Amino acid sequence: MRGQTQVRIIGIDPGLRRTGWGVIETDGVRLTYVSSGLITSTSDEDLAYRLRELFEGLSSVIAACGASEAAVEETFVNENPRATLKLGQARGMALLAPAMRGLSIAEYPPNLIKKAVVGAGHAEKRQIQAMIGFLLPKARFDSADEADALAIAICHASHRGAAALARRVLKEGAAG
Amino acid sequence: MRGQTQVRIIGIDPGLRRTGWGVIETDGVRLTYVSSGLITSTSDEDLAYRLRELFEGLSSVIAACGASEAAVEETFVNENPRATLKLGQARGMALLAPAMRGLSIAEYPPNLIKKAVVGAGHAEKRQIQAMIGFLLPKARFDSADEADALAIAICHASHRGAAALARRVLKEGAAG
Repeated sequence: MRGQTQVRIIGIDPGLRRTGWGVIETDGVRLTYVSSGLITSTSDEDLAYRLRELFEGLSSVIAACGASEAAVEETFVNENPRATLKLGQARGMALLAPAMRGLSIAEYPPNLIKKAVVGAGHAEKRQIQAMIGFLLPKARFDSADEADALAIAICHASHRGAAALARRVLKEGAAG
Repeated sequence: MRGQTQVRIIGIDPGLRRTGWGVIETDGVRLTYVSSGLITSTSDEDLAYRLRELFEGLSSVIAACGASEAAVEETFVNENPRATLKLGQARGMALLAPAMRGLSIAEYPPNLIKKAVVGAGHAEKRQIQAMIGFLLPKARFDSADEADALAIAICHASHRGAAALARRVLKEGAAG
């Protein structure tokens, strides 16, 4: 892995009320914490303008952090179609903002993210946060959404090689 | 209603594969067809880049058509959370594109849209299309998605006064 270039990854945990983001850097082996934060939307605004707040907030973060790859959690709320629709709308922003800047974008299901961080598909929030503290000792985060976003970025750091290969093979398969 | 200014409305029927749009003009009484069309996304693209196609397509249409108000169908797919999430993502684009240009945006449930066009909350596609032909004799559309988008615009034309009033009262109530 010596000589491999550094890559900056932004992990995004989308939500209409709170969208967490976390940026890390990796050379293929080591992980380094860069920054993290939370984008919130004003709940007394109309939905469309809350989505605009999220989109503009995320776009600024992506422009400022210099990430070239993005990772977004792939999840849905089973019990309630209204909640799932709402999440889908916020998730649309989390995918559009990096796409507008030309980043490559990967999606991971929650159990794979947990597995990448704590080694098991089921883990409690505090276990995930403890492992992030271990993997990224410089990380400073105030909220569970930021921690989740960092976990998504860590997951991408360990799967990006395989994910890129799979994408290439599948595209060539589709084209051939 | 004499002397009331013309307003241009864009109705949007969101979908990841096909998003229909229809523009009408009203002076508060009469309705006039302006234009309509379909935005499609390339199905072999990654989701984020399909959303970008939708967003850019819609943004161009909104910029070109000169609408100052937008109306979007408020719907979800009950049976399948994955389908609802996908719809939510496309719907996010249908809300963000007009919000980025500062339009006022209204949302209507499917039964209200049908009621506004055919006078009943339950109606078949062909009934809706026949009524659109009657209400907007100049309308030319090739797809059901375009017809649905025009129906959404017609619904907004007949509810926009009440919707604007309700929004103002509710905001004053929340602020007071």
